[in-house]
Amino acid sequence: MNKDRNKLFVAALGGVNEIGKNMYILQCGDEIIVIDCGSKFPDESFLGIDLIIPDITYLLNNTEKVKALIITHGHEDHIGGIPYFLKQLNIPIYASRLTIGLIEIKLKEHGLLRTTQLNLIDSNSHISFGAIQASFFSTNHSIPDCLGIALHTPEGTVVHTGDFKFDMSPVNHQYPDLHRMADIGKNGVLLLLSESTNAERPGFTPSERLVGDHIAEAFSKAQQKVFISTFASNVHRVQQIVDAAIKSGRKLVLLGRSMVNVTSVAKELGYLNIPEDMLIDAGDTDRYAPENIAVLCTGSQGEPMAVLSRLASSNHRQIEIMPGDTVIIAATAIPGNERNVARIIDNLYLLGANVIYGSGSSTGMHVSGHGNQEELKLMLTLMKPQYFIPVHGEFRMLYQHRLLAESVGVAEENIFIVNNGETVEIQNNIARKTGKIPAGNMLVDGLGIGDIGNVVLRDRKQLSADGILVVVITLSKTEGHVLSGPDIISRGFVYVRDSEALMRDINQLVVSTIEKLLEEHGSQWNMMKQTLRDTLGRFLFAQTKRRPMILPIIIEV
Amino acid sequence: MNKDRNKLFVAALGGVNEIGKNMYILQCGDEIIVIDCGSKFPDESFLGIDLIIPDITYLLNNTEKVKALIITHGHEDHIGGIPYFLKQLNIPIYASRLTIGLIEIKLKEHGLLRTTQLNLIDSNSHISFGAIQASFFSTNHSIPDCLGIALHTPEGTVVHTGDFKFDMSPVNHQYPDLHRMADIGKNGVLLLLSESTNAERPGFTPSERLVGDHIAEAFSKAQQKVFISTFASNVHRVQQIVDAAIKSGRKLVLLGRSMVNVTSVAKELGYLNIPEDMLIDAGDTDRYAPENIAVLCTGSQGEPMAVLSRLASSNHRQIEIMPGDTVIIAATAIPGNERNVARIIDNLYLLGANVIYGSGSSTGMHVSGHGNQEELKLMLTLMKPQYFIPVHGEFRMLYQHRLLAESVGVAEENIFIVNNGETVEIQNNIARKTGKIPAGNMLVDGLGIGDIGNVVLRDRKQLSADGILVVVITLSKTEGHVLSGPDIISRGFVYVRDSEALMRDINQLVVSTIEKLLEEHGSQWNMMKQTLRDTLGRFLFAQTKRRPMILPIIIEV
Repeated sequence: MNKDRNKLFVAALGGVNEIGKNMYILQCGDEIIVIDCGSKFPDESFLGIDLIIPDITYLLNNTEKVKALIITHGHEDHIGGIPYFLKQLNIPIYASRLTIGLIEIKLKEHGLLRTTQLNLIDSNSHISFGAIQASFFSTNHSIPDCLGIALHTPEGTVVHTGDFKFDMSPVNHQYPDLHRMADIGKNGVLLLLSESTNAERPGFTPSERLVGDHIAEAFSKAQQKVFISTFASNVHRVQQIVDAAIKSGRKLVLLGRSMVNVTSVAKELGYLNIPEDMLIDAGDTDRYAPENIAVLCTGSQGEPMAVLSRLASSNHRQIEIMPGDTVIIAATAIPGNERNVARIIDNLYLLGANVIYGSGSSTGMHVSGHGNQEELKLMLTLMKPQYFIPVHGEFRMLYQHRLLAESVGVAEENIFIVNNGETVEIQNNIARKTGKIPAGNMLVDGLGIGDIGNVVLRDRKQLSADGILVVVITLSKTEGHVLSGPDIISRGFVYVRDSEALMRDINQLVVSTIEKLLEEHGSQWNMMKQTLRDTLGRFLFAQTKRRPMILPIIIEV
Repeated sequence: MNKDRNKLFVAALGGVNEIGKNMYILQCGDEIIVIDCGSKFPDESFLGIDLIIPDITYLLNNTEKVKALIITHGHEDHIGGIPYFLKQLNIPIYASRLTIGLIEIKLKEHGLLRTTQLNLIDSNSHISFGAIQASFFSTNHSIPDCLGIALHTPEGTVVHTGDFKFDMSPVNHQYPDLHRMADIGKNGVLLLLSESTNAERPGFTPSERLVGDHIAEAFSKAQQKVFISTFASNVHRVQQIVDAAIKSGRKLVLLGRSMVNVTSVAKELGYLNIPEDMLIDAGDTDRYAPENIAVLCTGSQGEPMAVLSRLASSNHRQIEIMPGDTVIIAATAIPGNERNVARIIDNLYLLGANVIYGSGSSTGMHVSGHGNQEELKLMLTLMKPQYFIPVHGEFRMLYQHRLLAESVGVAEENIFIVNNGETVEIQNNIARKTGKIPAGNMLVDGLGIGDIGNVVLRDRKQLSADGILVVVITLSKTEGHVLSGPDIISRGFVYVRDSEALMRDINQLVVSTIEKLLEEHGSQWNMMKQTLRDTLGRFLFAQTKRRPMILPIIIEV
């Protein structure tokens, strides 16, 4: 037991070999620290699913050991799973001021605000969880108040970077704390977990200030109204938009629930400086000249229900884009959203707007919040870790990050690319992969968490491609023949009124199949249903090359 | 009538405000010429649909006038609709040698080869269709044997560029015919239709030779097997791959149906030069050292059933990717395919391969086949058209192309951005939009063409998101009460075995609803079904926040 007291291992419950639903655990003896609790948006293969969150079975099996959930920053892929997590396991949360503000918005929506223990930390905090001491360092990213975490254990120090870039000329003086990082590295880092999002991109990510300059220029050039869409949580960019509006003499309209919520929290907490008299309601824009109006809104990812999409299709109740207005999309499309964003740009041009989009360095309205290769190397060099696990990224990014680590001197055999759930244990300074704990996708669909599994998804897939054909037949129990039917109902297969001949053929085939079966075997339901499904399935595929789900309903009376 | 004899109009039946299914018509008096007959792959909103082709109602209503289908080149978005077109309207096709070779592959598959009249043309052909004379000019693009078309009518000359770039150092000497274009322009162009695919991109597209250099370098550096995936129809790139294999002493394996088909046609017709003894079967690779093997395969767009995808998941019967092998993806992902391609790259890295992808200019393995802004301006300048219609592109591309045309001197009021089906008429040298002819998406699903409409798609959408709940009840006709049931069947909604409580609640709700209805109104089926749908729908949404399709089946006996 003494040996196990200091046993140290780490694992990802989400966030490796994927983008999103970040969650990492560090266990040392009887203490477990959880880092981040993110969600992820499902891709098109998860039909009808709203959200994907990490499977926390391992934590539920070890509830008494779980001491804290530490959050690195307030993006959805780091906080989106919190309400679902808390409903299963209510543990204290530690986060910085803005991050807590954003978590509180979520907790309110889920009615969890009163029962949750939120602890404010900053980069100077030191917290003890039994044998583990946590300290922190400031990083910068596309949201303020980001923290990297150093967990000092009896085996040594484990560092988790969170998301970061090295923006040396940041907005609002949110500098990356190079000196603190250097100190941590100097004192020895046993294991580093560092984010890999941009590990495929050479060079150094440009400063957020570049975007500010471009926005200011576009605002001052625009002759009429300016609409600009960006991520609500990119508070530094929002500040630069506010500044550009002030400089060009424009009042500002905020549109979209998350834009209003987040700016309100950021303002209240002092992260955003907006003069009171510059904010106006959308309904009041007519009282100003077009060149005195700027509109900041949600929807930069082409989300069909968000404000930008509604504006682009002239579907907003209060405000309209007029020919000659300027529309800026200050974001790039996340993979999977390209087509929706392109459709919006088309619609904006159709309305006669000047549309500014894209991330070229000369006029670009977006820079990444993640460090490129040189910045990842800088972090690795500062931390000088003995062992390294690249995190936050799909495999090719983790792979490139491994090459970067090797290039700055981390020994190849000391780098571990892991899957979600794989444990890396360190004992007596020696690290190795030791096994697996449960990890995977927990699907959220409406109010259901985890109740949608492979069977339901497979059914949805078949239904989505070829629809369903329901065949209803009533048999006489006593006389052993067809009493009524078959009634054929098609949904998503063919439109019945346009397919009369096919419907007649289906009808005949069902009747002849059933009569033959009744004659040969009597009414054995299961065999009857299976035979109907097979016979009808073959016939329909031959006739249409489609494979609808076939649902035979046989009623005996 | 005399006035109408020379009446000239043009329209797009597909290809504007979209990428794909290109089809343009020019009508002059009683003659209609059709240019291209493409197909388009459905986006995710067209659930279960295989292909989209143009609606040709207008041509079917004017069959006697349709004189010819002229094809500019052999890409799917220009020839993919031909078999479906011919089944409705069998008219002579005119195309260049390779284009005909590729069309013949399609006609064979559809059993149409014998009944189709294929006419070989080249850039020197002159053909008369009544009052219309057609002449042609060579362009270059990512497939050999591309033609631009000049249709000389009594009203003036209308030019359609097809797809093009200006590659001045093309592979296999397929030069763009600048002198012919200059001649056509000098003699006066009334109306130009020019492609807009890259109208958003500044500068000049690099030469295909650049890719050849990079491929040759990668082939010679690779220590083991090389796998390379590209579009089968990019015969020039295939030639460069063949040359790189020869230079690096490698035998070549061709994998994938379209790769085998297209290279075989291109070889036979003299567009591709592959020494006989260098081609080997996939099964024979073991007889050679790994550094003497190159594999050219399909699947560069991440298509799940294509060779590259199967290789990446170690699912190919004959050949395997080993650690240290090199895999080159010589293509960029078409919008919508990014995630599938990324997944393949991940899997290739997991197998230990060196993966080379992306289109950066230093090591890039792909260049576009479409001209960038400077090339579009070059075409506009050569043609000096009086009127201009940008084609081939989504609205933002057409819009940018309009700006380019203005920048080289085309009068703003002489530029028409049209929708599919909008007619632009020119009479006495004056062009104007005059109306609309039918145009739209014809959906191909399995063997069905055009039988899937909005109702079926809407059903598929609902089924895909939340599944279906079938409720079966048997009523006694004479006694007016429930005889048996309700039986509740869920597909794609919830997994019944995990949802016993919900199923019990549904059961009770159905019974109480039906009994109440029977008491109050007797057995009025339609009202009963509607009430069940409403009541159950509200209940399920409150319980689960999901909206499955509800299908009540009521049987009276």
